[in-house]
Amino acid sequence: MPDDLQARAINTIRFLAADAVQKANSGHPGLPMGAAAMAYTVWTRHLRHNPRNPKWPGRDRFVLSGGHGSMLLYSLLHLTGYDLSLDEIKNFRQFDSKTPGHPEHGLTPGVEVTTGPLGQGFGQGVGMAIAATHLAATFNKPGHEPIQSFIYGIVTDGDLMEGVSSEAASLAGHLQLGRIIYLYDDNHVSIDGSTDLAFTEDRAARFEADGWHVQKIEDGNDVEAIDAAIRAAKADPRPSLIDVRTIIGYGAPHKQGTSKAHGEALGDEELNAAKENLGWPLEPRFLIPGDVMEFYREAVEKGREREIDWKMKLDAYKRLHPALGAELERRLNGQLPEGWDADLPTFPVDAKGMATRSSSGKVLNALALKLPELVGGSADLTPSNNTLFDQAGDFQKDNPMGRYLRFGVREHAMGAALNGLNLFGGLIAYGGTFLIFSDYMKPAIRIAAISQAPSIFVFTHDSVGLGEDGPTHEPIEQLAGLRAIPHLTVIRPADANEVAQAWKVAISRRNEPTALALTRQNVPTLEGTANGMLSKGAYVLKDFGTPEIILMASGSEVSLIFEAAQKLAAEGHGVRVVSFPSWDLFEGQDEAYKEAVLPKNITVRLAVEAAATLGWDRYAKAILGIDHFGASAPYKIIFEKFGFTVENVFAKAKELLK
Amino acid sequence: MPDDLQARAINTIRFLAADAVQKANSGHPGLPMGAAAMAYTVWTRHLRHNPRNPKWPGRDRFVLSGGHGSMLLYSLLHLTGYDLSLDEIKNFRQFDSKTPGHPEHGLTPGVEVTTGPLGQGFGQGVGMAIAATHLAATFNKPGHEPIQSFIYGIVTDGDLMEGVSSEAASLAGHLQLGRIIYLYDDNHVSIDGSTDLAFTEDRAARFEADGWHVQKIEDGNDVEAIDAAIRAAKADPRPSLIDVRTIIGYGAPHKQGTSKAHGEALGDEELNAAKENLGWPLEPRFLIPGDVMEFYREAVEKGREREIDWKMKLDAYKRLHPALGAELERRLNGQLPEGWDADLPTFPVDAKGMATRSSSGKVLNALALKLPELVGGSADLTPSNNTLFDQAGDFQKDNPMGRYLRFGVREHAMGAALNGLNLFGGLIAYGGTFLIFSDYMKPAIRIAAISQAPSIFVFTHDSVGLGEDGPTHEPIEQLAGLRAIPHLTVIRPADANEVAQAWKVAISRRNEPTALALTRQNVPTLEGTANGMLSKGAYVLKDFGTPEIILMASGSEVSLIFEAAQKLAAEGHGVRVVSFPSWDLFEGQDEAYKEAVLPKNITVRLAVEAAATLGWDRYAKAILGIDHFGASAPYKIIFEKFGFTVENVFAKAKELLK
Repeated sequence: MPDDLQARAINTIRFLAADAVQKANSGHPGLPMGAAAMAYTVWTRHLRHNPRNPKWPGRDRFVLSGGHGSMLLYSLLHLTGYDLSLDEIKNFRQFDSKTPGHPEHGLTPGVEVTTGPLGQGFGQGVGMAIAATHLAATFNKPGHEPIQSFIYGIVTDGDLMEGVSSEAASLAGHLQLGRIIYLYDDNHVSIDGSTDLAFTEDRAARFEADGWHVQKIEDGNDVEAIDAAIRAAKADPRPSLIDVRTIIGYGAPHKQGTSKAHGEALGDEELNAAKENLGWPLEPRFLIPGDVMEFYREAVEKGREREIDWKMKLDAYKRLHPALGAELERRLNGQLPEGWDADLPTFPVDAKGMATRSSSGKVLNALALKLPELVGGSADLTPSNNTLFDQAGDFQKDNPMGRYLRFGVREHAMGAALNGLNLFGGLIAYGGTFLIFSDYMKPAIRIAAISQAPSIFVFTHDSVGLGEDGPTHEPIEQLAGLRAIPHLTVIRPADANEVAQAWKVAISRRNEPTALALTRQNVPTLEGTANGMLSKGAYVLKDFGTPEIILMASGSEVSLIFEAAQKLAAEGHGVRVVSFPSWDLFEGQDEAYKEAVLPKNITVRLAVEAAATLGWDRYAKAILGIDHFGASAPYKIIFEKFGFTVENVFAKAKELLK
Repeated sequence: MPDDLQARAINTIRFLAADAVQKANSGHPGLPMGAAAMAYTVWTRHLRHNPRNPKWPGRDRFVLSGGHGSMLLYSLLHLTGYDLSLDEIKNFRQFDSKTPGHPEHGLTPGVEVTTGPLGQGFGQGVGMAIAATHLAATFNKPGHEPIQSFIYGIVTDGDLMEGVSSEAASLAGHLQLGRIIYLYDDNHVSIDGSTDLAFTEDRAARFEADGWHVQKIEDGNDVEAIDAAIRAAKADPRPSLIDVRTIIGYGAPHKQGTSKAHGEALGDEELNAAKENLGWPLEPRFLIPGDVMEFYREAVEKGREREIDWKMKLDAYKRLHPALGAELERRLNGQLPEGWDADLPTFPVDAKGMATRSSSGKVLNALALKLPELVGGSADLTPSNNTLFDQAGDFQKDNPMGRYLRFGVREHAMGAALNGLNLFGGLIAYGGTFLIFSDYMKPAIRIAAISQAPSIFVFTHDSVGLGEDGPTHEPIEQLAGLRAIPHLTVIRPADANEVAQAWKVAISRRNEPTALALTRQNVPTLEGTANGMLSKGAYVLKDFGTPEIILMASGSEVSLIFEAAQKLAAEGHGVRVVSFPSWDLFEGQDEAYKEAVLPKNITVRLAVEAAATLGWDRYAKAILGIDHFGASAPYKIIFEKFGFTVENVFAKAKELLK
């Protein structure tokens, strides 16, 4: 191809982006203009994809970790023939467009992950690389390798400054995830100004210390050098960072290389000057020269051929390995196997009971036998989270078939990686830590919710019931905070049987994340919890007579209200006991069901939960909760001191009944 | 001193810790036993402190970042003569003791920062080093140097795996904070097992890449080597990491060097075996040999002398530099200057108004003139957060007198550093980012709340009103999550005048953190907001006639309900308009005030806030909120589509009035 076409193809990306930002009068022209050449190189010379089938499982993945440069990605998606029209480009950052300010998975075809909050793309790419490595190890056979995906990414100064990227880089280096090829848009500029203001570490040395393969490109417009570096990265067994020195807003004569090019429209004058500077026609805006379009659109035919070729090879593979082939197909299609939930354990009524983290471990073992796609791990709290199932085997560089992930004390990277693992396809991934440390991974939990990633978060030690570790480790406000996240379903099961159902809900939800809140301490296994009603979010565990009062609780406090109800009933009161494991699930029920559980005419209600009271007001006027920090002591003493006793619940209920 | 005494002094730490954990049957013996020698070296040879005055401003600071090793710190506090009795040691992890599972600042004399959630101590120490460096640059004069503090820390594998530590290390290296001397308890073990499972990076190279001075000690019991390394660290202008190879649970013959020594009592048998192994009497438990006690307690006299000497030098300093000396004394005493709030700007009623982030910038400028102790910064969103005041000057290695902190895109380290800055003394520190990115720093916000650190968090872009950046950047659940944190006061001011009062509240609260939620978009300056009532949390902005309905709102939605109220009043309805900037402040009022603002007999109420509805149920049955993710579009369109219009509020109120 002529150099001229290449230069114009790159400029097309630059000016589609700059024109769209200008039309919206909002957005980030600097990244697309500076990183156009590297993106061009990835997308036209390396990325294996099929624009007409963005879900083709054989594809490579592209992650724009600096999601503010969304127009770079939208331009490439449009140019290479994805279902993203020029009108959508022109509607950049407008209501109901497919081109929001930052890329959103699930909204725009070809957007693999939701990015914008910095570091999230970096971390999700690491999860995707784990997925690809694990699936390749599990399914690929010599000469028949259906799983070949590389994970390409563009990462920015902002990404590298975020702690989640350090965690993820450390993990990727440890695991030697050679499928990762990240191009670092090293433009020396962030919003405050030069990176000299705050970001002066030796980045190459840092990534080398993490076990990465680091290359340096001095000229961000040198397509051949970038191309050669990508080829070297592919050949290297380590994860790769290609540090590409770029100029933010490249071409804009007065703003390039400065923070002025970062986060706002160039302005007509500067935009035109940039076009003149790079020999680009001022008009029309959104220009795509015919030969440039033709060149990019070769991706459509190439992608079609690639997928056909892949499918033919998959057919051959299936003939040679019929069972494995069928299994691979099932998993890539995201179908759960027949009877996956048939043998979930049930637990007999038992006053001693067990911690819900323990029953969770048992349920997990049952599920893992039926669901070979189930992989998971813990942020270095394996023996506490009960997240390790028998025979999982550790996923390590020398054991990529392992299904257990040692995330280290890196909750945030774990969260991001889980999202990547779940979005890659072929796997269902969970991760555990203490509920208090959900705080450390909150941004990743939100990304899961916003991007329809069915990550499963296993949060144990879910209240002051963890006892001696004390206030720093005792969640108070975490449940309220998680419950307020749209599309995240939080479930706090009351006992072992509710745990089994909670896992069933979590596995069934293939488009949204789920958070399980589990106890450290033993809780009784109750009568009436094995009925499958957990999926309704709240249900009548027992009516004692005709209810005058409703006692409701979640998790470890359900047994408490149950006992208090028995005492009230013994005194002749009518009491309803409602187990309320999930507000999110309950809010999804119809009005008739809600009314049946919580009839409006029963206004005497007491909600009991060992957590912040915030939000319970929706269901009960009286709330026994904890609106202060916890305490360090044996848990029974804390519960007693904080009023979580049968006697206190009984007394409060009596008071309300007056 | 005889070697024997030294060895026994170190073993005293080990077995006080192990005995306390054994008695509690809960806790972490491994760290204290492994790190006893390095802690001994710091505390007996280097740490400048006065056990009888833990608040002596001239002291060095000691940060136990691995807070799970709390018994190490409690042992040292007791041994060196702080107000922490042996009974408290024996009451380790018991209710109402001063020896909770993890160290808590404000509870236990001598505990400088709250730690336990990993990485928080590391980050707070960086903030303390910034504070010491800035204060030294501002006040020290040749020959008269009242500010000399070093920040010693013990950091662990877990700390180093957390992203917040990477951020903080990068920042510390950039700023060349030579006062930091962190000893890394490199014991090769975490909860899951060997660090080989997940943590194999070249840590020395990583810190060197960050610009740190790194030394390696091969034997964690080699006091002389550790001592020499600390001396070298003090002499080096860079922040120092001393990588000390230790053996977790040192001495315990069957558990040392394994994760079994980490997080549970050794058991009587192993504890006794450890004592035999190290030549320690099995009984009594909690043994402190007389000569050991005598040796450690030299710290009392030494500390007394040090403080006297420091005070004498300070007196000399004050004679030479009376104004500066008085100022230093005022600031170290934590007294606000007379009239600090006298000239806060007030803003005239103005329909166009301004964004509350802008009025915040103006207020900040006024405050900064009166409060030289006010320092702050932004996580690389300075022009968006309006956090830079005139003539602040950047705090940089070559300009340590600068009052503006370029935190980089490191929200989490910023949060932790703010806590350290505010706890050091002599400074009031704030930091800005978008409200959405409060998620990235949540653990640090919680640490502020739990440890009485008066950090001020400036969160701009506080709703879908930020517009085009879209769902990834639009807070929905953040307000609810923050409001649920005990001791954190969240304020979302309605206009410029409420902003001024919100800052006044934030500055006044010297024992608890405050979070300000500020708009990106313009909001009108309203009639009636300049009356100082913001400090009540909620107040009657205006009554139209005798109220039949209460409209309440916070922040940018107050002007909306105000206009809707006018329309309702025009139709003859009695309407109360309540500005509700802070639930936390309102809940602190007495019942009479609450009843006066929200009389129980006015049950027709509508709450309006462009955020998750969770929690508003406490004040109103009907809520106009946003329980889904946002949208990318010009903000007026988003508000319209989501129902945040005068017409819709009016219609909803009419519906309720039926």
